[in-house]
Amino acid sequence: MKAYSEMSKAELEALHEELLKAYADAQAKGLKLDMSRGKPAASQLDLGMEMMDALNSQSDMHTEGGVDVRNYGGLDGIPEAKKLMGDIMGVPADKVIVCGNASLTIMYDTVARSMLHGVNGSTPWCKLDQVKFLCPCPGYDRHFAITESFGIEMINIPMTNDGPDMDMVEKLVSEDTSIKGIWCVPKYANPLGITYSDETVRRFAALKPAAEDFRIYWDNAYAIHHLYEEADRQDRILEILSECEKAGNPNMVYEFCSTSKVSFAGAGISAVASSEANLAWFKQSMTIQTIGSDKVNQLRHVRYFKDMDGIMKHMMRHAAQLRPKFEAVIDVFEKELGGLGIGEWTKPNGGYFISFNALEGCAKAIVQKCKEAGVVMTGAGATFPYKNDPKDSNIRIAPSFPTPEEMAAAAELFVICVKLVSVEKMLK
Amino acid sequence: MKAYSEMSKAELEALHEELLKAYADAQAKGLKLDMSRGKPAASQLDLGMEMMDALNSQSDMHTEGGVDVRNYGGLDGIPEAKKLMGDIMGVPADKVIVCGNASLTIMYDTVARSMLHGVNGSTPWCKLDQVKFLCPCPGYDRHFAITESFGIEMINIPMTNDGPDMDMVEKLVSEDTSIKGIWCVPKYANPLGITYSDETVRRFAALKPAAEDFRIYWDNAYAIHHLYEEADRQDRILEILSECEKAGNPNMVYEFCSTSKVSFAGAGISAVASSEANLAWFKQSMTIQTIGSDKVNQLRHVRYFKDMDGIMKHMMRHAAQLRPKFEAVIDVFEKELGGLGIGEWTKPNGGYFISFNALEGCAKAIVQKCKEAGVVMTGAGATFPYKNDPKDSNIRIAPSFPTPEEMAAAAELFVICVKLVSVEKMLK
Repeated sequence: MKAYSEMSKAELEALHEELLKAYADAQAKGLKLDMSRGKPAASQLDLGMEMMDALNSQSDMHTEGGVDVRNYGGLDGIPEAKKLMGDIMGVPADKVIVCGNASLTIMYDTVARSMLHGVNGSTPWCKLDQVKFLCPCPGYDRHFAITESFGIEMINIPMTNDGPDMDMVEKLVSEDTSIKGIWCVPKYANPLGITYSDETVRRFAALKPAAEDFRIYWDNAYAIHHLYEEADRQDRILEILSECEKAGNPNMVYEFCSTSKVSFAGAGISAVASSEANLAWFKQSMTIQTIGSDKVNQLRHVRYFKDMDGIMKHMMRHAAQLRPKFEAVIDVFEKELGGLGIGEWTKPNGGYFISFNALEGCAKAIVQKCKEAGVVMTGAGATFPYKNDPKDSNIRIAPSFPTPEEMAAAAELFVICVKLVSVEKMLK
Repeated sequence: MKAYSEMSKAELEALHEELLKAYADAQAKGLKLDMSRGKPAASQLDLGMEMMDALNSQSDMHTEGGVDVRNYGGLDGIPEAKKLMGDIMGVPADKVIVCGNASLTIMYDTVARSMLHGVNGSTPWCKLDQVKFLCPCPGYDRHFAITESFGIEMINIPMTNDGPDMDMVEKLVSEDTSIKGIWCVPKYANPLGITYSDETVRRFAALKPAAEDFRIYWDNAYAIHHLYEEADRQDRILEILSECEKAGNPNMVYEFCSTSKVSFAGAGISAVASSEANLAWFKQSMTIQTIGSDKVNQLRHVRYFKDMDGIMKHMMRHAAQLRPKFEAVIDVFEKELGGLGIGEWTKPNGGYFISFNALEGCAKAIVQKCKEAGVVMTGAGATFPYKNDPKDSNIRIAPSFPTPEEMAAAAELFVICVKLVSVEKMLK
């Protein structure tokens, strides 16, 4: 196919006419699809329904250690759940606190706690003139929303295929005491789908922050969310807690994970892993904030999934559903956009997103055109702090919720919009 | 019986010898009982086990409105749960947000939010030199722990049989702009067991606070926790939200409740009720903090309890278990302490506590003596801000967890300790 940049003005004008017609036809189909959030499809949620039988009125409601999960007590979760969540993250159970129905809340509460009470005894951030976070981007909009809500200044860090630009991270962190954190989705990153390289993880672990209360917010949301069964198509990541220990920075990282996209979205369990000192600090305010998380739901999860083997088998059933959706999109992109020079996209081995980079200045217009034809995408810019993509180029595609057929139809519309907006930009 | 105050020194000394022996005998029994927290007994939790069958792998996991409870979405809870929790509080569903597994967390988060973001746009409390809360006491230790953890100054307000001393509340609230809140357990108060009178509720609703961001924290934890079936032994309370509306103070109150002592302690659902403006303000930060609470557990609760009728029937089964425990304690107290003039106790119609007032300066010693004989009580002083009971007199008794027989044994020990410590005080 001929790249758009090589076309004459007349060719582009002819193409524009064609595309306007194609777009009108697509609009006429009256699509009504939502690709805005990384939501599991109903058929994925059906996979978790067997878990609903893990506990019933006849069940023994005690942990192996004899704790009645129906009563108060147990701030950090039942031991079985600590073990399971630790296994997902690759850390020992004693480094884990099991929390409520979403890791988002742990992250918010961790930042809120740092604002109000400081970090392991440091000055509360609300007493400081300036607090900054590094934000590798494109990244996860809900991370940026947390820091923005507290008035924390966000600094964009470019992403490479190996993770964040570590030269920049190292320099900024070592120079500026007001930099207190960095948001990371280290595996199957949201939205890029890449996994941080071993070197990146080691450089994170070896950071020499100017601020003693600097922490890495390691949101391992997709730790086990592979799309493929083959070992060589499953990304691996170095375990950050032990790397930080080795590097003499045992307290520098908080790791988060959940079963939101394992069991049920919003009715799973979540966890944070960190050093003994950090967890002790967490518990100091948790003991005031909560009587502990829902232990019945923790028991339900461990009775059903049992162990990592059970979890991984379950995740392969998810993969079987998700894979065709990702491939449907990528197939359409390759067929329709290959060689045109008007967009680049990722082909992730896992996670929930495909990341698309349009020509500069085109993302918002593409998302708007999709919306006007019935397909809702994540808002352009959402993958950047302050919803501001400086290049107006990145679009996050969330293929999980529609069916593969719907996904293909949505992708067809998307490519028409990409082409149309790109041509219009070139004709300007 | 002869009051201790009428005894001669010789009589007291003889009594002291007797009591030392009785205490040694009691110690020799090797009791091991915990009356420290308002924890449901295992047999009460068994009552909730049928709820575990309300949802299974074959269940329709959609709300009446068609929302899939297994997926993301729905910040304020499913409509059915809003209705049920609203009914418990006597307020319409549209004034309710259903939250996680404990109302304690809503209260903590509400104070934390006010610290960081202010109240409906007011100055965040963390930016103020001074923030104060009124604390009717004896009261709930976990309330006081929240305000203490944020460095909020707590002011003791005496309790009467009709609720807090409203003369004092009205005066302080109208004069001091740094007073931002008051903690209330308005029905079957923790630990006094009294219910605020209609006049008290109306005076609360008609407060004229100097601070626009003053709020009443109305923790209706025992709204439906009667001990008796007879209507005349069930306390009633005026509904505060509508009283506040009538008085022109629609935004002045937050009401909290939960099913912690209805279904499971720590695995129930909780809710906050307030005005539209207040809930809108809550949601502004909730939408950053959470993806919504566990809707599967909400659905489980409404499928099982169905409506207020179902809830009240269930609560009567709880009452049947709790009543004998309360009565066992009160019987022992009346038999052993009646007429001695060394203690007063409450006879509540509901809730989870009996409140005991010893002679001034005796509470700590009594609790310590109980502990040394194997019976753990709530720490003396815990019912006051800063754990400081100025009179060292109040002891909270939580009869729910042991069996009635254990409760009677514990009460026997308790009265020996009361007598012993009282005599020792009088002999000093």
